[in-house]
Amino acid sequence: MSLLVVGTVAFDAIETPFGKTDKIVGGAASYISLAASYFTRDIDLVSVIGDDFPESFLNTLKKEGVKLDGLQIKKGEKSFFWSGKYHNDLNNRDTLETQLNVLEHFDPIVPESAKNCEFLMLGNLVPMVQQKVITQMKKRPKLIVLDTMNFWMDIALDDLKKTIAMIDVLTINDSEARQLSGEYSLVKAAQKILTMGPSVLVIKKGEHGALLFNKEEVFFAPALPLEEVFDPTGAGDSFAGGFIGYLAKTKDISFENMKRAIIFGSAMASFTVERFGTERLIGLSQKDVDERVQEFIDLVQFDISLV
Amino acid sequence: MSLLVVGTVAFDAIETPFGKTDKIVGGAASYISLAASYFTRDIDLVSVIGDDFPESFLNTLKKEGVKLDGLQIKKGEKSFFWSGKYHNDLNNRDTLETQLNVLEHFDPIVPESAKNCEFLMLGNLVPMVQQKVITQMKKRPKLIVLDTMNFWMDIALDDLKKTIAMIDVLTINDSEARQLSGEYSLVKAAQKILTMGPSVLVIKKGEHGALLFNKEEVFFAPALPLEEVFDPTGAGDSFAGGFIGYLAKTKDISFENMKRAIIFGSAMASFTVERFGTERLIGLSQKDVDERVQEFIDLVQFDISLV
Repeated sequence: MSLLVVGTVAFDAIETPFGKTDKIVGGAASYISLAASYFTRDIDLVSVIGDDFPESFLNTLKKEGVKLDGLQIKKGEKSFFWSGKYHNDLNNRDTLETQLNVLEHFDPIVPESAKNCEFLMLGNLVPMVQQKVITQMKKRPKLIVLDTMNFWMDIALDDLKKTIAMIDVLTINDSEARQLSGEYSLVKAAQKILTMGPSVLVIKKGEHGALLFNKEEVFFAPALPLEEVFDPTGAGDSFAGGFIGYLAKTKDISFENMKRAIIFGSAMASFTVERFGTERLIGLSQKDVDERVQEFIDLVQFDISLV
Repeated sequence: MSLLVVGTVAFDAIETPFGKTDKIVGGAASYISLAASYFTRDIDLVSVIGDDFPESFLNTLKKEGVKLDGLQIKKGEKSFFWSGKYHNDLNNRDTLETQLNVLEHFDPIVPESAKNCEFLMLGNLVPMVQQKVITQMKKRPKLIVLDTMNFWMDIALDDLKKTIAMIDVLTINDSEARQLSGEYSLVKAAQKILTMGPSVLVIKKGEHGALLFNKEEVFFAPALPLEEVFDPTGAGDSFAGGFIGYLAKTKDISFENMKRAIIFGSAMASFTVERFGTERLIGLSQKDVDERVQEFIDLVQFDISLV
């Protein structure tokens, strides 16, 4: 078994300067799974939903090679719901409403078949829930990637630190890297965070690209300058999905290959932001993905020979 | 004659989270000339100072191949002075004091020998002063690069637009590109600005790198993640100086070569921010510059073969 994805499958209601949605399908694990499915079709999902969730989306996941044995469907309960409004610059957003619903007592249960997964992607969730998944593994996965956010640094920092100590790759944004490390310089922040457990740190800078650090090296992946960013929701999750999907496909966790994985992750994120929700991530062709990756290659390619 | 640099040679007093200076040497043309001098030693400077300016800095410029025939020294007057304080994030600053002094009535006079320059770099100045330099040229330079700022968009937009219509490459930051175009998307902003005269636009994003646009192509140059950014003053000018210096050296103004020039410009800017003022730009070796450029190459180099 190849890739286990853990995270929310949920409803979002989103308002951006370009439009507004009613309840649409969202959640970290939805974006991660869909983005990863372009690279591997051997994916297990661990999550929880209520019985209010559209069967059609679950069918889409199944069609893309995502097994749902680890998806708990709670009778008579409602799925996690988040609504938010983006500022004009799209870099900031206000949460209008959060209904935890099924997430409040979520006890993740990893299906037997997934306990030997080689790649584990822990989407943003309560750190203790993420940890509970790790401890259910039969053998240590080849790579554990964890995404988290400032919210858990504010209210569950100790749990988060314990969980981070068990993983390989941490993905957070620049302000979260500063918060977690207490360092303003991202280089210093990375050095500090890399003493907390992870051997690799990804700092996501949204429209400004992403940085990949290990203790000795740094790599920068640009974001594609887009004509319109329509809805940034799920960009970070799609990035993580493309990243771990590519690694799961190639089974190579060297820093060199992680550079490639970051570019594929960035490409998947660049699709997501072009439409509301998960819409743009469904039904892309291999050619679409390759062409997008080629745009990234062209964007940063230069040829300097130093003598 | 190769490169003509126009801009301020001035005093700054700077406060950053890391320290504070008294009056030190600054000014756009100081940074531009020093950065460019690593690539060509055939530089003419057009500027104005008072008789309060340190002879030692003028000697440094001369030593680096910068001819000062076009530098007016106003007896009994004082040099332009700016003081500012950076916020903790170093991305924003407040102007504490501006004394125009000699700049108030600056009438630029291009020395005869410089009227045939192939490359003209117009540092940030009153747009009409920049224009006055262009109209003194005997023949149209091979390339005219102009740097400006939001201040002139606020108070002299018509003059600025007329001046921009006469140039080849405009360098501004991201918020200025948005202000000048009225477009939030940088891709759309670039398309609009490229109808105003320049055939190439450089959008400087500070710690987030720089974008190079022509009507068909886009290139992204990263900024080097630095352990400490000590003082951002002059970064944009050093960038411009490295950019045009490299072009003047290679005499190749193709988009491909401009990509290389942007990387050299970014390298020069990355030195400048490591110390207060122009300190770090003085006395670098060719090896220092090459090693820094190699860091940029390493930072973004990846190898993806799409099949």
